[in-house]
Amino acid sequence: MDAESGGYGLIEQGAAVLGGGRIIWVGQEAALPAEYTTLPRHDLGGRLVTPGLVDCHTHIVFGGDRAREFEMRLEGASYEQIARAGGGILSSVRATREADEQALLASALPRVDTLLAEGVTTIEIKSGYGLDVESELKMLRVARRIGELRKVTVRTTWLAAHALPPEYKDDRAGYIRDVVIAGMERGHAEGLIDAVDGFCEGIAFSRDEMAGIFDHAARLGLPVKLHAEQLSDLGGAAMAAQHGALSADHLEWLGQDGIDAMAVSGTVAVLLPGAFYTLRETQYPPMQALRDAGVRIALATDCNPGTSPMTSLLLTMNMGATLFRMTPTECLTGVTRHAAAALGLSDRGVIAPGLRADLAVWDIQHPAELTYRIGFNPLHTRFVGGELV
Amino acid sequence: MDAESGGYGLIEQGAAVLGGGRIIWVGQEAALPAEYTTLPRHDLGGRLVTPGLVDCHTHIVFGGDRAREFEMRLEGASYEQIARAGGGILSSVRATREADEQALLASALPRVDTLLAEGVTTIEIKSGYGLDVESELKMLRVARRIGELRKVTVRTTWLAAHALPPEYKDDRAGYIRDVVIAGMERGHAEGLIDAVDGFCEGIAFSRDEMAGIFDHAARLGLPVKLHAEQLSDLGGAAMAAQHGALSADHLEWLGQDGIDAMAVSGTVAVLLPGAFYTLRETQYPPMQALRDAGVRIALATDCNPGTSPMTSLLLTMNMGATLFRMTPTECLTGVTRHAAAALGLSDRGVIAPGLRADLAVWDIQHPAELTYRIGFNPLHTRFVGGELV
Ligand SMILES: [Zn+2]
Ligand SMILES: [Zn+2]
Repeated sequence: MDAESGGYGLIEQGAAVLGGGRIIWVGQEAALPAEYTTLPRHDLGGRLVTPGLVDCHTHIVFGGDRAREFEMRLEGASYEQIARAGGGILSSVRATREADEQALLASALPRVDTLLAEGVTTIEIKSGYGLDVESELKMLRVARRIGELRKVTVRTTWLAAHALPPEYKDDRAGYIRDVVIAGMERGHAEGLIDAVDGFCEGIAFSRDEMAGIFDHAARLGLPVKLHAEQLSDLGGAAMAAQHGALSADHLEWLGQDGIDAMAVSGTVAVLLPGAFYTLRETQYPPMQALRDAGVRIALATDCNPGTSPMTSLLLTMNMGATLFRMTPTECLTGVTRHAAAALGLSDRGVIAPGLRADLAVWDIQHPAELTYRIGFNPLHTRFVGGELV
Repeated sequence: MDAESGGYGLIEQGAAVLGGGRIIWVGQEAALPAEYTTLPRHDLGGRLVTPGLVDCHTHIVFGGDRAREFEMRLEGASYEQIARAGGGILSSVRATREADEQALLASALPRVDTLLAEGVTTIEIKSGYGLDVESELKMLRVARRIGELRKVTVRTTWLAAHALPPEYKDDRAGYIRDVVIAGMERGHAEGLIDAVDGFCEGIAFSRDEMAGIFDHAARLGLPVKLHAEQLSDLGGAAMAAQHGALSADHLEWLGQDGIDAMAVSGTVAVLLPGAFYTLRETQYPPMQALRDAGVRIALATDCNPGTSPMTSLLLTMNMGATLFRMTPTECLTGVTRHAAAALGLSDRGVIAPGLRADLAVWDIQHPAELTYRIGFNPLHTRFVGGELV
């Protein structure tokens, strides 16, 4: 999956030498340097090995679920009826506030385990259903705990700027000051935050509000990313790019200005076909213009209880191909090298000397099968930091 | 899932008595008749129990795969280029003819196992990639073998009328006579055929050709079903209904005449959202008209290497809801009671005394979760014919 190969960069009859959690050597088995031939060997039986997968955009920690709301909507309930029945994002906020860390952890782990069973070795987890300082920090503590309990790298993202809670509905500036910024400072001091994110949309936060939040993040030395141009073009991606954002995510309504800005800043385009599918969107992200501009494209599950209750990165790859016409090579790059870049991680996403020994081993003949099949998991095993799990 | 409940018919704190492979009693645990209280008990820990799922339309036995063709198309290859590279349905025919029974079995079992791991206890398997008598019979022998090797009921369907093989391209009548009819008679004599199916479409067989084939099936006492109105309205569903078909399948282009005929004959509408999704169709099956006419609606994976390489009936349920706006109740009915009806099986699909003890036990709170979640498998265990597996 190295950038130079322009494709899978497949090695037939390959071998890799792992040590100290890193890849020490990779190449054809026949070319294995003599110094490594006496090491203990693990025969993978001719299976296909890829970099461990990276899910670079999830909201996988949350309270409650929204299955009944999903059902009510399909049974014809109006948005007003659903709101009166306590539905919508605020129902997740309520349930997340009420849940303690143990309960949040217990509900998130089966979802995380489903991803890991598909070869995921790095996962990003956002806050954003607490919307008060304590609840937002609680979500990120649970995220960190997942990284301790499971063989996976967890990257945490501060997403207090996800929605405005009812208690601040007439005081946007107060919410940004008291919760988004004050909580960011506390979370940063406690080592809970790896990046800062926001939802830049008519129904959430404006471009200028997000720019102010990003300025604070920069002062703390925290990288930023943004939910941008999902439902309309507010110029969020361009603003994020000007702040050197790691990624801009969703991007269905992204225009050429945004694309150009992202190309200049090296901001990764994270596409989320699960949300596109669930919302039955018809506005497609500008695939060809992104390609033409050389913007790196990643794919992620966007696992969340409202618009993408999805826990399959393999299905995300199929949706990337089926819905967005990405090639299988682009889909695999999108959940390895480019997904790692969207998290600012240059130590993974490719099988190369010096990088982390995070690998997925598959019972398939050709990497295109990962994208082609729907609802099938051919994972044989994972290596995480050089350890077989 | 009984028809009278008009919904899930949930029983809280329920219990079921199983014996001789059947359900003997079902109701609230508190109402358990005294005669059963001394039987050995299996505590399901308050989990949700549904009828075992029924996948009533699959082409799960085939040779080769089409991942590279999928990749070529996304990389911009034309249909002509793919055909020249040996792609399309005839590539599956070639690979199926070349494979022996052991090879077909070995490739199908992981796909079948994926379905069983999601609570499937009955699966229909079609021929249709052999297109000569021996190869078609070989496919159905493999299907029967799957039923012996795995804890699942397999129903076999003779689908020689799937496509015209190259050797008969100028002799349609000869193919129907020598392969479709002659093979049907042999397969019937060998006990390999539970139903007869065909692909009624401009690119396959006409309504009149299929009517002739169905007349032969009737003489052998075999029930019929039809791939109808997927890409155009040829009146196939109405013709099938006039032949008393168990089901008409796909139905995106079904008109009111066909709906009325299906309502009269009790023909089940089997919708296949996986194919709709993969082909990026925009013509929706007439959901509301089907409901209004009282036609029973089922859902199936259509698992096949070309247009629905899908092995998840749970994802099929989500697609039924997301793409076709079916309610979660309709989706669950569609993979239990109505799917059983599409196979002519009146002994399953509902948890009721006298029916087969095929049950799925789930780690969920509410049945809507089965449809709401994407790429998540909450199956705890299955009972097949009363046996815990
Ligand atoms: Zn998101
Ligand atoms: Zn079919």
